[in-house]
Amino acid sequence: METQNKTATIKGGEFLIKETNPQDVFIPAEFSEEQRMMAQTCLDFVREEVNPLLDRLDNHEEGLMEGLMKRAGELGLFAVSMPEQYGGLNMDFNTSLLVTESVGGGHSFPVAFAAHTGIGMLPILYFGTEEQKQKYLPKLTSGEWAAAYCLTEPGSGSDALAAKTKAVLNAEGTHYILNGQKMWITNAGFADVFIVFAQVDGDKFTGFIVERDYPGLSLGNEEHKMGIKGSSTRQVFFSDCQVPKENVLGEIGKGHLIAFNILNIGRIKLCAATLGAAKKVIDLSVKYANERHQFKLPISKFGAIRHKLAEQAIRIYAVESALYRCGMDIYRKEQELLAAGKGENEAMLGAAREFAVECAILKVEGSEVLDYVVDEGVQIYGGYGFSADYPMDRAYRDSRINRIFEGTNEINRMLTVDMILKKAMNGELDLMGPAQAVQQELMAIPDFGSEEEGLFAAEHKAIRNLKKAILMVAGTAVQKYMASLAKEQEILMNIADMAIKTYVAESTLLRVEKLVGMRGEEAVANQIDMVRVVVNDATDIAFKAGKEAIAAMAEGDEQRLLFMGLKRFTKKDLYNTKEARRRIATAMIEANEFVY
Amino acid sequence: METQNKTATIKGGEFLIKETNPQDVFIPAEFSEEQRMMAQTCLDFVREEVNPLLDRLDNHEEGLMEGLMKRAGELGLFAVSMPEQYGGLNMDFNTSLLVTESVGGGHSFPVAFAAHTGIGMLPILYFGTEEQKQKYLPKLTSGEWAAAYCLTEPGSGSDALAAKTKAVLNAEGTHYILNGQKMWITNAGFADVFIVFAQVDGDKFTGFIVERDYPGLSLGNEEHKMGIKGSSTRQVFFSDCQVPKENVLGEIGKGHLIAFNILNIGRIKLCAATLGAAKKVIDLSVKYANERHQFKLPISKFGAIRHKLAEQAIRIYAVESALYRCGMDIYRKEQELLAAGKGENEAMLGAAREFAVECAILKVEGSEVLDYVVDEGVQIYGGYGFSADYPMDRAYRDSRINRIFEGTNEINRMLTVDMILKKAMNGELDLMGPAQAVQQELMAIPDFGSEEEGLFAAEHKAIRNLKKAILMVAGTAVQKYMASLAKEQEILMNIADMAIKTYVAESTLLRVEKLVGMRGEEAVANQIDMVRVVVNDATDIAFKAGKEAIAAMAEGDEQRLLFMGLKRFTKKDLYNTKEARRRIATAMIEANEFVY
Ligand SMILES: Cc1cc2nc3c(=O)[nH]c(=O)nc-3n(C[C@H](O)[C@H](O)[C@H](O)COP(=O)(O)OP(=O)(O)OC[C@H]3O[C@@H](n4cnc5c(N)ncnc54)[C@H](O)[C@@H]3O)c2cc1C
Ligand SMILES: Cc1cc2nc3c(=O)[nH]c(=O)nc-3n(C[C@H](O)[C@H](O)[C@H](O)COP(=O)(O)OP(=O)(O)OC[C@H]3O[C@@H](n4cnc5c(N)ncnc54)[C@H](O)[C@@H]3O)c2cc1C
Repeated sequence: METQNKTATIKGGEFLIKETNPQDVFIPAEFSEEQRMMAQTCLDFVREEVNPLLDRLDNHEEGLMEGLMKRAGELGLFAVSMPEQYGGLNMDFNTSLLVTESVGGGHSFPVAFAAHTGIGMLPILYFGTEEQKQKYLPKLTSGEWAAAYCLTEPGSGSDALAAKTKAVLNAEGTHYILNGQKMWITNAGFADVFIVFAQVDGDKFTGFIVERDYPGLSLGNEEHKMGIKGSSTRQVFFSDCQVPKENVLGEIGKGHLIAFNILNIGRIKLCAATLGAAKKVIDLSVKYANERHQFKLPISKFGAIRHKLAEQAIRIYAVESALYRCGMDIYRKEQELLAAGKGENEAMLGAAREFAVECAILKVEGSEVLDYVVDEGVQIYGGYGFSADYPMDRAYRDSRINRIFEGTNEINRMLTVDMILKKAMNGELDLMGPAQAVQQELMAIPDFGSEEEGLFAAEHKAIRNLKKAILMVAGTAVQKYMASLAKEQEILMNIADMAIKTYVAESTLLRVEKLVGMRGEEAVANQIDMVRVVVNDATDIAFKAGKEAIAAMAEGDEQRLLFMGLKRFTKKDLYNTKEARRRIATAMIEANEFVY
Repeated sequence: METQNKTATIKGGEFLIKETNPQDVFIPAEFSEEQRMMAQTCLDFVREEVNPLLDRLDNHEEGLMEGLMKRAGELGLFAVSMPEQYGGLNMDFNTSLLVTESVGGGHSFPVAFAAHTGIGMLPILYFGTEEQKQKYLPKLTSGEWAAAYCLTEPGSGSDALAAKTKAVLNAEGTHYILNGQKMWITNAGFADVFIVFAQVDGDKFTGFIVERDYPGLSLGNEEHKMGIKGSSTRQVFFSDCQVPKENVLGEIGKGHLIAFNILNIGRIKLCAATLGAAKKVIDLSVKYANERHQFKLPISKFGAIRHKLAEQAIRIYAVESALYRCGMDIYRKEQELLAAGKGENEAMLGAAREFAVECAILKVEGSEVLDYVVDEGVQIYGGYGFSADYPMDRAYRDSRINRIFEGTNEINRMLTVDMILKKAMNGELDLMGPAQAVQQELMAIPDFGSEEEGLFAAEHKAIRNLKKAILMVAGTAVQKYMASLAKEQEILMNIADMAIKTYVAESTLLRVEKLVGMRGEEAVANQIDMVRVVVNDATDIAFKAGKEAIAAMAEGDEQRLLFMGLKRFTKKDLYNTKEARRRIATAMIEANEFVY
């Protein structure tokens, strides 16, 4: 990775208006030996130490998850993105994503892991005072202590800032007195340190570091959940809980900065975890399909099953392409900010904030890919998919939470569009120019000019056109609704879907194009198939979403013009996805595992 | 219902080539007072006696489900479609569907109910000797005894006829000796009577009635399942199990007739049960969305949530339209066969067999609508959707089995197309004529002739065109692949999707058209919206499926021609589905319940 370019080549959200050179994206084939070893350590840990305990973990056997977390700490898994002075390894961002991916197949474990290393530890790292860091980070990094993050309350989830927990400075001026109730707190059962958000003096939303032993903190019972039963989830009650003044995290009234900044990183990491989970499930799916015979054949011989296996693979490959592309973009931005003299924390947070749009996109896509993959996994297993003695049941139940936490997918879809538009408004992103160009193109006679050549000429054109379609639809929406666009959530969802599919498809294209350069066409023929399927299907989804938005926004001549534009921008030659999927599936079926 | 037409107005599968007059479809608004009372009895039973026990049922509390089943028997719920001489009420087919729907919200209960009244009792009713009927049916009808159905084995599920359980006549010629193992047997834990399929003399697939007490029958432990945990599911072992010769069911070697004929009825009933479950879930969804506040508003105010509520309602309404339309078509066919001198059993089985295509369609659509509805239910509940203390968790887990049993949805999709083509081949259905007409239309200049008028002119045209698209794609597939079409499962899936969406959309259109005639446009304005959304979205899905099939089947000029045809047949004016969905949702939100 050291050989990578260290200046940002693209800004956050800019994929909508800019073409990226394949040489400028990071692709998983470029992971270093060291990174691969780190990943292998995680995979081994999950296979050898976590997976044998899944049933017992789900039964909340006393101390079991806590013990696993300590083991993971000993192995250095919590150290990846921590600075060396706190016992960390200070590795780059994509390594931390790769580690998260690599524990992702561990069911409840990655949830505990993410709550600890992400939303638990990072607020202290990025917003803590030096004293706070020295006190907490080494113990959290080594796994001696565990962390939890208390934002949600019974009455406030999506609207996190509406939290009611109160904090009042005592008369002596030494302690904040916390009163209130937090809900759904992961790791609560064994956490030593809680990051807690409360309103100081009624409305100053503020973060606190609260230790388990502080008087006035108590826990509810373990929640009964659909899945990730092995992760501890409890209510946390504060009843005149005394928190030393020194444990205020960041500034009074600036708690939202902590909450929102940490969420950006949380979202891209959630995508990494879902990727790891999905890879495990597809591997099981391939093996089962080869093993299970019906009608005298392994069911992997049936086209219906090949379709599922291929589609699992394609979606996994696509989201993986987007994940590590974005991870590297964040890393480069971080390096750029460091070079410009920013502090380490500021650089990392600034970099993640820059790519907040992409982080939201990845959260949505990762969680939905996983849900697709597990759903087909269940179906491939047939009746055995519904049995708790086979692995798909747990995978299906565990996966469902990912569309709900770290911001529901509805909230993340709306944020995707909202953040893009805000960037345009404050001049960070020049959407207006390109949007106007598209408007003009709409009025002009279509240019059937000379076609480009090259392996992926059609796909590049398709992606360029998808971006035009987005600009056309989003531009119209902005013009029509102005400030009240936020009330047109359905249209925002349409635009978000277009943007998500475009980002992911483009990332897949760039990855495979780079790969072709490295290995030659023949070696990556199936990956080339994948690009074509992904672009084909992204175009179909964008067409449908765009059509819905246009029908909702415009009538008469305007509608006709826009719809004509949409059709022009989503026009593509037909592509035989059936044969492509068969080829993609066959390679896995022959290898009896996920091979991409 | 007595006032209904008693001659069949359409043949099975004929919806593909024939237009139906709205007056000829049965719609739920026509249920009689008596039928509604029957439904209410079931709804009350589920609400008062089943639902308070759900947790305990899921914990397999000894005797609890058995007791509920006995209660249901006392209330007459098993008697609906039984003839009077066996203690039944001999009600018509749609009443039995309505009863199944009305218990459908009872989670594990409808599964036990369906196994008992459907696959458990019906084989005896339709294939038993008079002695067998007299011995078993009155006790099964009253609920004194419970029934189970043993077809699946560890190695044979979809390929049911590959069962390995053996039956050999003993030397004395008095008993068949059964050896083998059945898997996933619903009600096994408390059933008194088992319908068992076994191979006589190696390969004569044959049904048997086996009583629990016969020597050599034993049970496995309760399976651990993802959902419907309250239903008993066990293995059933036969070890030199002695079954009196008199207990052979039907003819030796003709067991497949029992299995397949019963499945037709099982599939449409499964659709009814999923409909009932879905109605319960949408009701909860509406109420929760009204109750839950975020950002100072009930979440039902947000467009994203309204979209979900509306889409839940639309899909439920659409599949309900198709369900009872088909139920009445089966009833009429039954009456027609009776009038033509067939016996009662033959008439009922013949009628269900006639509409086997529609039964498979309903099985797929019902189970997929329910899975959509519960998935959005979970999402609407947010974190609480993932909690086992709230209702969505159970609904989500319980629903998933429906895409697996009674034939997986893959098998049912393929059967849909397969059965249509068989009907065409053996002359039951004249597909060739209409298919050729479509081919000719393809070559001709499009006829922009005078547009029809009327409220639903555009929708009728769209449905007519969808049928043409299906004929075009299916016709091409048959020509191309001939006998090897079965190997092109992906294309069969595409055609099945087109057929399913067309049947359901047409049924919705016909229902609402009839309703407009009864109540006037104004009273059913939202239902009119639903028709337009359903037709709009069915067209989009058919376009995508047709495109995939064409890309897989044809190249060059032929592809261009077919694709042009597809575009022509799926051309529609844009429709503002956003506003339609808002209207549809608003009525429910205001009433705080499902109102359609
Ligand atoms: C197992 C589990 C573990 C968790 N771990 C933690 C943790 O460690 N720490 C923590 O602080 N929290 C945690 N959470 C809480 C989680 O982040 C919230 O559940 C999530 O943010 C959703 O909030 P909610 O449940 O209140 O749903 P709500 O906000 O009530 O949402 C309900 C529905 O309304 C929609 N909605 C809400 N607002 C809008 C809007 N403005 N427009 C359109 N739609 C809207 C949502 O998308 C959703 O569909 C956890 C939750 C679970 C279930
Ligand atoms: C809770 C539960 C209750 C049940 N109750 C009963 C009962 O009371 N009585 C009873 O007899 N059975 C019962 N079953 C069994 C049920 O009917 C079977 O599970 C179902 O038929 C699927 O068979 P299978 O599980 O063997 O899956 P398989 O047949 O092994 O199918 C595995 C996958 O392969 C696909 N597949 C199989 N063949 C083909 C093909 N030719 N082409 C393409 N794809 C194919 C399937 O669609 C599926 O995706 C029950 C099952 C469950 C889980």
